[in-house]
Amino acid sequence: MMQLQHNSVIPLYHQLKEILKASIDNGIWNPGDKIPSENELMSQYEVSRNTAKKAIEELVQDGILYRVQGKGTFVSKPKLEQSLTNFYSFSKVLKEKGMNPSDTLLNIENVFPTSKMKEALELSDGESVIEIKRLRSANKEPFILESSFLPSKFIKDIHVLNRIGTISLYDLLDEEFNITVSRAKEAFEPVLIRDNESNYLETEVGKPALLIERIAYTDKGVPIEFCKSIVRGDRCRFYTELTK
Amino acid sequence: MMQLQHNSVIPLYHQLKEILKASIDNGIWNPGDKIPSENELMSQYEVSRNTAKKAIEELVQDGILYRVQGKGTFVSKPKLEQSLTNFYSFSKVLKEKGMNPSDTLLNIENVFPTSKMKEALELSDGESVIEIKRLRSANKEPFILESSFLPSKFIKDIHVLNRIGTISLYDLLDEEFNITVSRAKEAFEPVLIRDNESNYLETEVGKPALLIERIAYTDKGVPIEFCKSIVRGDRCRFYTELTK
Repeated sequence: MMQLQHNSVIPLYHQLKEILKASIDNGIWNPGDKIPSENELMSQYEVSRNTAKKAIEELVQDGILYRVQGKGTFVSKPKLEQSLTNFYSFSKVLKEKGMNPSDTLLNIENVFPTSKMKEALELSDGESVIEIKRLRSANKEPFILESSFLPSKFIKDIHVLNRIGTISLYDLLDEEFNITVSRAKEAFEPVLIRDNESNYLETEVGKPALLIERIAYTDKGVPIEFCKSIVRGDRCRFYTELTK
Repeated sequence: MMQLQHNSVIPLYHQLKEILKASIDNGIWNPGDKIPSENELMSQYEVSRNTAKKAIEELVQDGILYRVQGKGTFVSKPKLEQSLTNFYSFSKVLKEKGMNPSDTLLNIENVFPTSKMKEALELSDGESVIEIKRLRSANKEPFILESSFLPSKFIKDIHVLNRIGTISLYDLLDEEFNITVSRAKEAFEPVLIRDNESNYLETEVGKPALLIERIAYTDKGVPIEFCKSIVRGDRCRFYTELTK
């Protein structure tokens, strides 16, 4: 067991925090494990209640630990890291990480586009879009609630869309309609989980999430998809590389 | 004034929502303007309370309108759009948009790195970092609360860091220490505004924000900065382009 250095200039709560973190990084504690209580940490490391409290509090704020009312403090699962540099496929990213992706098709229907969709998809007045609503999971845990909106005019036969779940949307567009998606624009903003989303995503209302809006274009430069994703903030993290 | 089509297949709340949105897009209403009340919309467009309520509610959820308790519903300011494709400078982005950037230097001090910073900055045991904490504003409105952590060993004279505010950090590193920052990695995750952050950012605790962690490298590939930014979700939006 690592020791606190009581005569160090480094604050005790900071040392305790790093020790607890190391126990997680080294696999001594695993996701879902209960960590010692404040009282246990106090006697184990000979620190004050304030020190134990502050160390735990900061680890909770950092998302490394989470509290369950009346049950204790537990180790969080690590977040899924997803690159923003390349055109990514959620299923592919998961498979590469040894996780098992699955999609639940929630709904396919003709809807009216919002003005934002109309502009993005370059639609004329009165043109409708087909909404494909999916819940995307990893190892059976829901991660992303996603709605793809496709201009109805491109989808000659709506029934083939039922193949989604066994084939990716872009592969399906390619196979069935000879439409090749080759680039996309994405916009990100932080939002709070809403009531209807919390049921699907099995998380609480008001928790942080990322709203991603994607406009995907074909190889001919035609906008083919407007996609709105709500991504669980406690389970995913995005990264990118920047150069001058 | 645009009219609702009561015999259309498009739901009335959807039509009303689009009309209200158009009034904002066309500059009839400006950011900060109060929009008509539910009662006023009901008589003006001959719709039910439910229709008026639902249209307003969705625009509030979309961040286009905001409510002030007991005062009414108002038009939000548009979000600042920032690209993730290129190495960006907050000040430069703002200037290009005709906004006036300003930085408030909050604190410069020697601190102990967390284990995450230690790893990112490839520090040995006992090495300290200098934290430069800044509040970054646009047209005097706070947007980002940012802490840059630099390995102390690279900063021969801590006092020159006081120049920040009149010069960008990277320009200063170049001029004073001959350090050229040339690339960076960034990770994004949605979080909630915390108590101490809300004072600086002049926003409420629990509002959505983006946490950005950047590791910047010199042209020699040496990690020189670990930067943690809390970006107001109601004021900023990030975008990127993806290709196959």
